[in-house]
Amino acid sequence: MTQPDVVIGIDIGGTFTKYGIVDRLGNMYVEDSVSTEAYEKAEDFIAFLYRKITEDINKTGKAFNLKGVGIGAPNGNYYTGKIEFAPNLKWKGVVELAKIVNGQFGIPAVLTNDANAAALGEMIFGDARNMKDFVMITLGTGLGSGIVANGNLIYGHDGFAGELGHVVVTVGGRQCACSKRGCLETYVSANGIKRTVFKLLGEEIVPSRFRDVTFNELEPKDITRAAEEGDPIAIRAYEYTGELLGRSLANTVAHTSPEAIFLFGGLALAGKWIFEPTKKAMEENLLPIFRNKIKLLPSGLLDKNIAVMGSAALMWKELEK
Amino acid sequence: MTQPDVVIGIDIGGTFTKYGIVDRLGNMYVEDSVSTEAYEKAEDFIAFLYRKITEDINKTGKAFNLKGVGIGAPNGNYYTGKIEFAPNLKWKGVVELAKIVNGQFGIPAVLTNDANAAALGEMIFGDARNMKDFVMITLGTGLGSGIVANGNLIYGHDGFAGELGHVVVTVGGRQCACSKRGCLETYVSANGIKRTVFKLLGEEIVPSRFRDVTFNELEPKDITRAAEEGDPIAIRAYEYTGELLGRSLANTVAHTSPEAIFLFGGLALAGKWIFEPTKKAMEENLLPIFRNKIKLLPSGLLDKNIAVMGSAALMWKELEK
Repeated sequence: MTQPDVVIGIDIGGTFTKYGIVDRLGNMYVEDSVSTEAYEKAEDFIAFLYRKITEDINKTGKAFNLKGVGIGAPNGNYYTGKIEFAPNLKWKGVVELAKIVNGQFGIPAVLTNDANAAALGEMIFGDARNMKDFVMITLGTGLGSGIVANGNLIYGHDGFAGELGHVVVTVGGRQCACSKRGCLETYVSANGIKRTVFKLLGEEIVPSRFRDVTFNELEPKDITRAAEEGDPIAIRAYEYTGELLGRSLANTVAHTSPEAIFLFGGLALAGKWIFEPTKKAMEENLLPIFRNKIKLLPSGLLDKNIAVMGSAALMWKELEK
Repeated sequence: MTQPDVVIGIDIGGTFTKYGIVDRLGNMYVEDSVSTEAYEKAEDFIAFLYRKITEDINKTGKAFNLKGVGIGAPNGNYYTGKIEFAPNLKWKGVVELAKIVNGQFGIPAVLTNDANAAALGEMIFGDARNMKDFVMITLGTGLGSGIVANGNLIYGHDGFAGELGHVVVTVGGRQCACSKRGCLETYVSANGIKRTVFKLLGEEIVPSRFRDVTFNELEPKDITRAAEEGDPIAIRAYEYTGELLGRSLANTVAHTSPEAIFLFGGLALAGKWIFEPTKKAMEENLLPIFRNKIKLLPSGLLDKNIAVMGSAALMWKELEK
């Protein structure tokens, strides 16, 4: 029996690390996760992860031809293979993660940030398979992005390109954890729409279920449910979120003129509530030559483990160079 | 005697068309210009241009090995080789320029817009020679741009990427000829700074030489001279222009994280008046990871014919593919 060629995709998050064994067609042979927080040192965590993955592979009773490890991690830098000062990880400072993984696994390892990995996942396994120019927006607690032009991810001079969450959409606007004000992710993200709900509760006098909820209690997914039930604050919050996202995406189009923009993550699951106002505001703010040309789409991997698929895609892309 | 390998660089403007014969090192053997307006049909103009260039070559008494023709033109599309609806050209609608030039000259011809050509000129002959990621901003009547990432110009899906002049910097701001409001070029360009002078004459009560000048009379270069002589409106106009440019460039950095941003054109010649406030506003609006990293530089071809050099560079880049 031939051993399938596969790569390991690892997505490192602040709380959990997800991983999978993925072939070139996107078939996932192993899919599991572990806590990221159990180890103070990255070296110890990677040694633990190696044992776990080996165990999982043994359990399948199959043999694989392991070609490499692709890793997505917050602040992961493709050029250096290092995680640099990730605020949500226990490992502080600069962590030479690709080197540690390569040493432990004995196969090539390559690293990037989670949003870039998602973009590569869409390109290798998702709905951007035939696209050379597209943008991936990941809507989680914050807003991440990966920009593909001429068939390649834009890493930029220093490996940190694609930080659309920190494009300023409102001069002097909302305070952002990054130290600036008015960044896109303070408006367009799970946390951003929550902030918008509270702003609107102050501005408007319409009734809303959220008048009896504290800021710390409010779950972003409740906003979608409320919108579906006709809550005027929830509906207006989505309109406002989409307006700012669409306006900002129009500026992104002026930069790279993509074929499509994909939305992924919690807010993207809200469907029409987010897509309609975003599309409207984007079109209104596009230069005429770009109008009615740019597809605004949900990620083709919405129901898949895009974080792991994307990390695997990073390695597949590397192997094809 | 060996014939040097050369390309023809042609820059088509609304009034004049400049051209030159350029070798791979940027030596210019012929440099001349003709009126763009004399011919109603692009075919007739190109036939005329062919005769002119042939004459000019004969005058040098040298023989050249002509490898191709690179053309920069407003609304020139790299993918299609067509000029599409250029508002400042006599030739209306869609003009198959690369095809016409190829037919007339009998050598490969390739087309892009003037700002993209300038970016390629900087990359092949100027100060971006060792850069893989940079941005070129051309400051003329409007604001053009060319974005290079991973060593290649970003043309985008449709060939129209890099329209930073139409990024919106002020929602509901100044009316732009493109049909939108608040576009960067309505603030940052020869015409933009003129508009700013008039806005400031209304807002401020300080004396200024411009209180006796009409809008139609004001020459943008007089603003630099006035700033040098201490005119408070002129100085404030440059501060405001730089502030908006810097703020917008910070957003561009969040997209492609370039090694450098080059400024070219009339406003770039104003030196510290434009560079200092732009740099200040850019740094203030950058995500911390990008701070003090991005070089803001005058084009290395400020004293050269960048339009012709850039068009030649386009063809050289093509020949090296």
